[in-house]
Amino acid sequence: MGKFVHKGLEDVVVTTSKICFIDGKRGKLLYRGYDIRDLVKYSTFEEVTFLLWFGELPTRAELEDLKRKLVEARSLPPQAFDLMRELITSHPMSALRTIVSFLQAYDEDAEDDSIEGARRKAVRLTSQIPVIVSSFERIRKGEEPIRPDPDLDHAANFLYMLKGEPPSDEEANYLDKALILHADHELNPSTFSARVTISTLSDIHSAITSAIGTLKGPLHGGANEQVIRMLRDIGSVDNVEDYIIGLLKKKERVMGFGHRVYKGIMDPRAEILREYVKEICEKTGNMGWFEMLERIREVMEREKGLYPNLDFYSGILFKSLGIPAELFTPLFAIARIVGWTSHVIEQLENNKLIRPIGYYEGYPERDFIPIDLRGG
Amino acid sequence: MGKFVHKGLEDVVVTTSKICFIDGKRGKLLYRGYDIRDLVKYSTFEEVTFLLWFGELPTRAELEDLKRKLVEARSLPPQAFDLMRELITSHPMSALRTIVSFLQAYDEDAEDDSIEGARRKAVRLTSQIPVIVSSFERIRKGEEPIRPDPDLDHAANFLYMLKGEPPSDEEANYLDKALILHADHELNPSTFSARVTISTLSDIHSAITSAIGTLKGPLHGGANEQVIRMLRDIGSVDNVEDYIIGLLKKKERVMGFGHRVYKGIMDPRAEILREYVKEICEKTGNMGWFEMLERIREVMEREKGLYPNLDFYSGILFKSLGIPAELFTPLFAIARIVGWTSHVIEQLENNKLIRPIGYYEGYPERDFIPIDLRGG
Repeated sequence: MGKFVHKGLEDVVVTTSKICFIDGKRGKLLYRGYDIRDLVKYSTFEEVTFLLWFGELPTRAELEDLKRKLVEARSLPPQAFDLMRELITSHPMSALRTIVSFLQAYDEDAEDDSIEGARRKAVRLTSQIPVIVSSFERIRKGEEPIRPDPDLDHAANFLYMLKGEPPSDEEANYLDKALILHADHELNPSTFSARVTISTLSDIHSAITSAIGTLKGPLHGGANEQVIRMLRDIGSVDNVEDYIIGLLKKKERVMGFGHRVYKGIMDPRAEILREYVKEICEKTGNMGWFEMLERIREVMEREKGLYPNLDFYSGILFKSLGIPAELFTPLFAIARIVGWTSHVIEQLENNKLIRPIGYYEGYPERDFIPIDLRGG
Repeated sequence: MGKFVHKGLEDVVVTTSKICFIDGKRGKLLYRGYDIRDLVKYSTFEEVTFLLWFGELPTRAELEDLKRKLVEARSLPPQAFDLMRELITSHPMSALRTIVSFLQAYDEDAEDDSIEGARRKAVRLTSQIPVIVSSFERIRKGEEPIRPDPDLDHAANFLYMLKGEPPSDEEANYLDKALILHADHELNPSTFSARVTISTLSDIHSAITSAIGTLKGPLHGGANEQVIRMLRDIGSVDNVEDYIIGLLKKKERVMGFGHRVYKGIMDPRAEILREYVKEICEKTGNMGWFEMLERIREVMEREKGLYPNLDFYSGILFKSLGIPAELFTPLFAIARIVGWTSHVIEQLENNKLIRPIGYYEGYPERDFIPIDLRGG
């Protein structure tokens, strides 16, 4: 035995991949070779979806074809809405996990194990997840779900189905950019769990169900919701210093800081979101929020040498779009489904069962003791 | 970059663990220090459940207490039966995954993140899974589910709920031993996926849902079903040599052989099951099956140096108990839930987020190309 224990698999390379490159020292993030900074500036979520799935940016005809397929796939069987009503007391991530698992029973390609079958299911799941999230939220609030609008793009349609009125171009645009930023991030825990599940040659619904359950945890998808809670607690920029120092003294975690992969540099997605959040706070007269964020950032850099991550800024952006805090993690899933399915297909194309080992530190071999001779 | 890629995480140590020790060179398997050979001989599935969960064999009082809790937990909300009817066309593993995910909504400890809450949910899931599997099978066949019998032990109650009549002591005993043999096996893919999911501090229902989806794959839980199909194809002992050599020439996989951890030696669980299967085939006058298994074993050892694993023998045992082939993988889940929950709790007790990295071999950084300038 005596082998080194790679707890948490930190820095352990588990696969080759062509999808996403993170340079954690220079603060660079590439999807299929394209800088995330260019993608948010010049492309849309649908273009990025095509890029992540197929490896190249689409021609206009390819993009129109994918958009048409995504629009067509914006539907759920009526049984899925019945199931939402049975799940009404659940956390939206718990409901999303159950409904995605359930949808396998109604998928026409459920038993098709081919890569092409997986690609068709990827399109369907990408369109179904925002329908589930928006419909479940309305049902929870006692409202009727809204039918999708085929004339709206992916981000705009989600906001429409959530609120019942079409968003402004600016709102749709901010959400579109946020979805691009969340679409993939290499072997994060939810993506890795999807790859572990598919590595037994299980099916794509199983893999995505695993990913949703993994994203649900507060150490992964839940952090942005907690940043908002922290800002509410702090209340004003004058309280930041005492509040953060207080948390650090109690050795409590300050949410939205640090990252397993970006070390000593700011997550480039956080840099981009910081600009958006600044714009939004200026436009909406909420510079108090931005000032609090800036002050927290300064204190954390000074005290801990830690930089903000994506979650530090995304909550404020989502909040400004009128999205309730309980939907922040489901919104992450709405974007990350594209990365999950890209990685599942890559795993299927060159699969090896993922089966690590443990380092046993329990009892050495011992003799069995009959039940009446065991101590009480 | 340039780091070594641990594809499939083969031989990578991802955690310390006190639950299960596999000596892949000597063909030894210990649960909490006790040899699997002693456990099948002297204990019951309920005793082994206590052992895996709490680290020690129970006193008689502790065992009675656990058995009482397990009996009390043999129930599902009526909505779960309604959901089964909506899933009637699904594979039983797909239905099991969806229903376990669904049950979080009805669990009184759903929002309790403590270790004690996780332990209560582990009891509930251990009792609920056999109820789901047996009830779903009956509903699929157009029959009514059977109510559990509180006077029957875990294995016997499952057979009773599946068939509507109590099993013989001998049948219950064989299933009880088979459940012990399947209860844990260190960081197999489904258990590992449960640990990945819980490592984000998600919840136990999410972790077990991931594990079920991972077990569903034919490279993990599905192999024993395929062994039975192979035996049917072969038909008689005289055809074994040609059939197996034929598969090997076509480079096709012979199911039930080889193991990531046992190398150059027979899986001890397979050795134990081989004896049971021999007894059963003798008693039932089906020695033809056993002779086929023996001949396949000889050919595979001679040609490939590979030894049978658990799956090579378990299908015949399950079949002799009148369990349909589609339930072989769900039966694996009925046993492995104990291992899954033991590992989830161990992960929670000393958690570190599981987040590996990839080795990027895709495009180097490239310039964004506006859509109308892209090749067609």
